[in-house]
Amino acid sequence: MPPVPADSLVVGIDFGTLSGRAVVVRVRDGAELGTAVTEYRHGVVDDRLPATAEELPPGWALQVPSDYVDVLRTAVPAALAEAGADPHDVIGIGTDFTACTMIPATADGTPLSELPEFAGNPHAYVKLWRHHAAQPQADRINTLARERAERWLPRYGGLISSEWEFAKALQLFEEAPEVYRAMRHWVEAADWIVWQLTGTYVRNACTAGYKGIYQDGCYPSREFLRSLNPGFESFVHDKLDRPVGRLGSLAGKLSPEAAAWTGLPAGIAVAVGNVDAHVTAPAAQAVEPGQMVAIMGTSTCHVMNGADLREVPGMCGVVDGGIVPGLWGYEAGQSGVGDIFGWFVEHCVPQSCSDAAGSEGLHAFLTRLAAQQEIGEHGLVALDWHSGNRSVLVDHELSGVLVGQTLSTRPEHVYRALLEATAFGTRKIIETFEAAGVPVTELIVAGGLTKNPLLMQIYADVTGLPLSVIGSAQGPALGSAIHAAVAAGAYPDVRAAAAAMGSVQRMAHQPVLANVSAYDELYAEYTALHDYFGRGGNDVLHRLAARRRELATVAKGQN
Amino acid sequence: MPPVPADSLVVGIDFGTLSGRAVVVRVRDGAELGTAVTEYRHGVVDDRLPATAEELPPGWALQVPSDYVDVLRTAVPAALAEAGADPHDVIGIGTDFTACTMIPATADGTPLSELPEFAGNPHAYVKLWRHHAAQPQADRINTLARERAERWLPRYGGLISSEWEFAKALQLFEEAPEVYRAMRHWVEAADWIVWQLTGTYVRNACTAGYKGIYQDGCYPSREFLRSLNPGFESFVHDKLDRPVGRLGSLAGKLSPEAAAWTGLPAGIAVAVGNVDAHVTAPAAQAVEPGQMVAIMGTSTCHVMNGADLREVPGMCGVVDGGIVPGLWGYEAGQSGVGDIFGWFVEHCVPQSCSDAAGSEGLHAFLTRLAAQQEIGEHGLVALDWHSGNRSVLVDHELSGVLVGQTLSTRPEHVYRALLEATAFGTRKIIETFEAAGVPVTELIVAGGLTKNPLLMQIYADVTGLPLSVIGSAQGPALGSAIHAAVAAGAYPDVRAAAAAMGSVQRMAHQPVLANVSAYDELYAEYTALHDYFGRGGNDVLHRLAARRRELATVAKGQN
Repeated sequence: MPPVPADSLVVGIDFGTLSGRAVVVRVRDGAELGTAVTEYRHGVVDDRLPATAEELPPGWALQVPSDYVDVLRTAVPAALAEAGADPHDVIGIGTDFTACTMIPATADGTPLSELPEFAGNPHAYVKLWRHHAAQPQADRINTLARERAERWLPRYGGLISSEWEFAKALQLFEEAPEVYRAMRHWVEAADWIVWQLTGTYVRNACTAGYKGIYQDGCYPSREFLRSLNPGFESFVHDKLDRPVGRLGSLAGKLSPEAAAWTGLPAGIAVAVGNVDAHVTAPAAQAVEPGQMVAIMGTSTCHVMNGADLREVPGMCGVVDGGIVPGLWGYEAGQSGVGDIFGWFVEHCVPQSCSDAAGSEGLHAFLTRLAAQQEIGEHGLVALDWHSGNRSVLVDHELSGVLVGQTLSTRPEHVYRALLEATAFGTRKIIETFEAAGVPVTELIVAGGLTKNPLLMQIYADVTGLPLSVIGSAQGPALGSAIHAAVAAGAYPDVRAAAAAMGSVQRMAHQPVLANVSAYDELYAEYTALHDYFGRGGNDVLHRLAARRRELATVAKGQN
Repeated sequence: MPPVPADSLVVGIDFGTLSGRAVVVRVRDGAELGTAVTEYRHGVVDDRLPATAEELPPGWALQVPSDYVDVLRTAVPAALAEAGADPHDVIGIGTDFTACTMIPATADGTPLSELPEFAGNPHAYVKLWRHHAAQPQADRINTLARERAERWLPRYGGLISSEWEFAKALQLFEEAPEVYRAMRHWVEAADWIVWQLTGTYVRNACTAGYKGIYQDGCYPSREFLRSLNPGFESFVHDKLDRPVGRLGSLAGKLSPEAAAWTGLPAGIAVAVGNVDAHVTAPAAQAVEPGQMVAIMGTSTCHVMNGADLREVPGMCGVVDGGIVPGLWGYEAGQSGVGDIFGWFVEHCVPQSCSDAAGSEGLHAFLTRLAAQQEIGEHGLVALDWHSGNRSVLVDHELSGVLVGQTLSTRPEHVYRALLEATAFGTRKIIETFEAAGVPVTELIVAGGLTKNPLLMQIYADVTGLPLSVIGSAQGPALGSAIHAAVAAGAYPDVRAAAAAMGSVQRMAHQPVLANVSAYDELYAEYTALHDYFGRGGNDVLHRLAARRRELATVAKGQN
């Protein structure tokens, strides 16, 4: 390994749902020297296709691949400029992406949506992670996998998501055979962007495992795929299979074309692709077994390493080297967290509150009032399922429940009950991991919601765990930079790079004993309601959702 | 019976919670010729005692008796003036009151609060119906009555309310023995006002039965009272017992003093007192068995006559002649209806809605949006217990539940779900009556909420019953006027007077078959949640209420 100069830099690029962010980071200590954000010009296409103005069905969510390249062209040079960096000090690039976000591409990686003959076909576009129109395909995958007792199914908590590679591919195959035929590669956006940077297509161990059902070196079998649909038998061989690169390893060198886009020297290292949540773990120095990282934003993603393989009911997945090579990476999630708070503030808070909040802002105002309440003073318990439940019930037909309202209930009471409900949801996940033999010893939080100290204290008190907080406000991009440094050879592995470049404020929030015991009681109420509404005690939420969907279908038919 | 001149008039006076209303009514046809309202100067005293500014404990609600007399002095003359009436055409006065509202008085009817030595004692004041501080006494009454299997207990659905005469009297006896000793009469305000008008103290059959546990000519026994508290043994004999007058009968003649207050001729008929909800039944011509009148305002009171005596679980009471002499009068109630809608609009609706509603007003705006929804489109089910449950669970520790919220839930969805929840609550009451052998054949609605046509249609669709609507906007005052006409001898009985003077729009809202069947499904969901949260499936609401109360007590102790 060649010696690395003291002022070497790396660039981490985080591709989110609405924008991409580039950060210039010093290899020696992880200092973030400059940052820039580029909004995607087309954002999320969930209404009408840009090319034709064709209306998209409910549940669809597409993107336009050139928006990602624009981030390379604009955010990277802008971050370098802000850092005042000499591009020749940059020794590597790392990236992370939303997932599972899929691009149908030709043999050379051209997205089909960029071919004139397919520009008007919605199926030729990027299917964003939150494209939810492949649920019928996911249902069939799950039914068949259960029937055949596929050994990979328990690695996903017993359920394959409609968001993932196989469900989306099967939808493409069945609903747009012409696009499927023209497609040579069904590519994770996480890998496609690396392909654009390097000219080389390498899959990454993270999405291959979590989203591509790649376990113990194999994908689902031809027999399985044939039983799903005879013509789908050779999908893996024809469209999916590629070498899988370890996280932090070198995908290739920066191509001259990509060097021109970014203003960086051609030939520098480009790391294998990664996922925004998973890449945050090393940025928070959470690379040892038992350190659970909760990336808390509109939703929460939980990632954690474990020494052993265990089957955790309702987890999103467990993947060998899925977070850090050499350990089993576990993932779980809560589908609604910050977006529930945002929805409440937007749609459920009266003008008198807005007026009283003034320039303080409603979140800060309600948090301040909520902080004055004793635990349980509001008399409420909520279920945090306004966006369904990802873990541990894995049920998107569930919805929110609020119990205990009186004529004295005020917005700050409900607000606190919703904060608490998401904390109970996290505790439910932690307990499920522990019951399955995967101990959780520390909770490390990252993401936008770490700024709310009341929320953090509630999480500490509800889980009874000391809370550590990531030091960086741009965890994913820092995590990508860490992987860039490893790929460039500046550190022997991700663990060493994380120790030098990651940052975390250890034990920033300590559980308070009296609060822990008060919350034990409320959590028991949450658990009873969780099981009653979520585990068959009363299937009212499913019936309500079915009726809502049925009426929406009728209404659409009438249009 | 002397002939009654064609242009004879009567005056009905309705004493509400915050004001008193007088209406001048033509005896011949019930035409309402003039009306006037007087707000009570002291309103509801639930914060500090006017005389001393002493802070009142939680749950207390007092009034000042002179405020009632002010209504006689001001509203009656104003209504006569508005009617352009010659006072000499007025042949009788009838009154109705909130209940159970109790006044401790001397032998001549002077309220103890008007004696200088007691002006500073909260217990000397009127205890308004919603004074809720006698719950410990009510609990003891109920426990003892169950133990002793008192034959009157099932006449009250199995529970005596803390609002009623005995619980409030026992509180007075135990907490303010000096006031109790000085009191000669424990008087319903409904009877006290008639006493002021006539100089004669006559109890009325309605409050004696519903609030005074007067059944089959007896009150609870001396043995029962002694077991409650030895010194309380002679309460009925010493403080309560008086002749009980039938509804619509003559209590006495207008005294010269009261004639001077009102501007009416001395010597005209004054009817026996009555209660606002019960007196509304004849105003809506609902005097036959099976005609249930729902008086829908902040809360809903259901009154209905039945031919036979039946024990209905969770009803408020059944009283011989409690509504119309000669029939059994049944009463049930929902403790929160309009006040739930009002709470929602005040505390749960965002500024964007207020802005969009503009001068239309939020209730009208939300109702208009809600009316555009298909049944079940909102995906919600609510329990209407924000103010507890009066019938059929009789449980004030219950609270509201809202099930099915998603990030797409908007205020007009929740608003409709709350309207529906109160309709489900009414259906639950109707079904409980029918199951107990008291058939309900028609639903007649009165009160402020009749103005909302969507709400009316929902009630018709949820109950499957045609809805009739009272013709008068001031039902109680018209009902009192009807009783005045009977007391003055203009009609042989309440039934005949109601036929001539009452008014109702029959079958104003017809159930729509498809809606009835759609609501059957949602009502099944309501019932499952009703029993789960209200009948011991999960006592979470009790535990939440207990914790809330405990914390409030601790907080008070710290002040």
